[in-house]
Amino acid sequence: MDIEKVNSMDFGEFVDVFGNVIERCPLIAAAVWSQRPFSDLEDLEKHFFAFIDALPQSGQEGILRCHPDLAGREMQRGKLSAESQREQRGAGLTSLDADERLRLAELNAQYRARFGFPFVLAARLSDRAAVPRELARRLHCPPAQELRTALGEVKKIGHLRLADLLGADQARA
Amino acid sequence: MDIEKVNSMDFGEFVDVFGNVIERCPLIAAAVWSQRPFSDLEDLEKHFFAFIDALPQSGQEGILRCHPDLAGREMQRGKLSAESQREQRGAGLTSLDADERLRLAELNAQYRARFGFPFVLAARLSDRAAVPRELARRLHCPPAQELRTALGEVKKIGHLRLADLLGADQARA
Repeated sequence: MDIEKVNSMDFGEFVDVFGNVIERCPLIAAAVWSQRPFSDLEDLEKHFFAFIDALPQSGQEGILRCHPDLAGREMQRGKLSAESQREQRGAGLTSLDADERLRLAELNAQYRARFGFPFVLAARLSDRAAVPRELARRLHCPPAQELRTALGEVKKIGHLRLADLLGADQARA
Repeated sequence: MDIEKVNSMDFGEFVDVFGNVIERCPLIAAAVWSQRPFSDLEDLEKHFFAFIDALPQSGQEGILRCHPDLAGREMQRGKLSAESQREQRGAGLTSLDADERLRLAELNAQYRARFGFPFVLAARLSDRAAVPRELARRLHCPPAQELRTALGEVKKIGHLRLADLLGADQARA
């Protein structure tokens, strides 16, 4: 899909295609449509990220709270978004053994209790061994720093999803 | 459900219950959770509305774009949210005859083309005869005024959905 195609979309098509660039936040794609036309993928991405950055802290925390736990309840129940399912499977998180799943569930619960949002990580840039290690590390970060880190992961996930949708080659042309 | 119950919810439960108070915008409920505890329904509602009011115009338009057309494509395809399905059925919009459906489809298309968001109306406060009349009237309003009107309807819908969830009697107690 090239950027001319993107710029020709009405808002219904745009939200259908880009609605999950930010996990379960079609509102953000729907807002970004107001900023068309876009010159390229970087420009499109810039508007997604600017929207996130301009939200009050509660809104940024809200974005994080729309994400599922890694290898968590939504996965067990088959309720992941298609994108998250693919990303978590790619990182090996759908084939954890019982001990790994339990360890991750405990860490996720501690993290949620401490920060008030779930642990968010770009799973495609990680793997089943690194995820619990990184979770255990970030669990001890100061809350303000951790919010920034988590939003950085949201942006990495969004970047990869956008690059998939637009085709990475055209993307940086 | 009383307000103590609401205040005891973790963010996962809260988003499960209140995630569609604003149609297809769980981000907003997820953000509102940051403001707990709530003193009553009015206080809870106040935080939903304050979040909407604080968004940039693109974000407010984004909220509207997460709404389905009345008696539109999502209804034909069985893809309405449970709340919207119930509300549109209550207004008689699921049992329009072919002429009524066509008339509404034409008006919806004109409205979307003019304003860049779908026609939003609290269907529970309307009926199948009033909807096309109101649509035809609002189609001619100035865009800035129409954005305000449409967000007012989002709030009416949200108020009714919140009152349902909390039980209207406790709600204003």
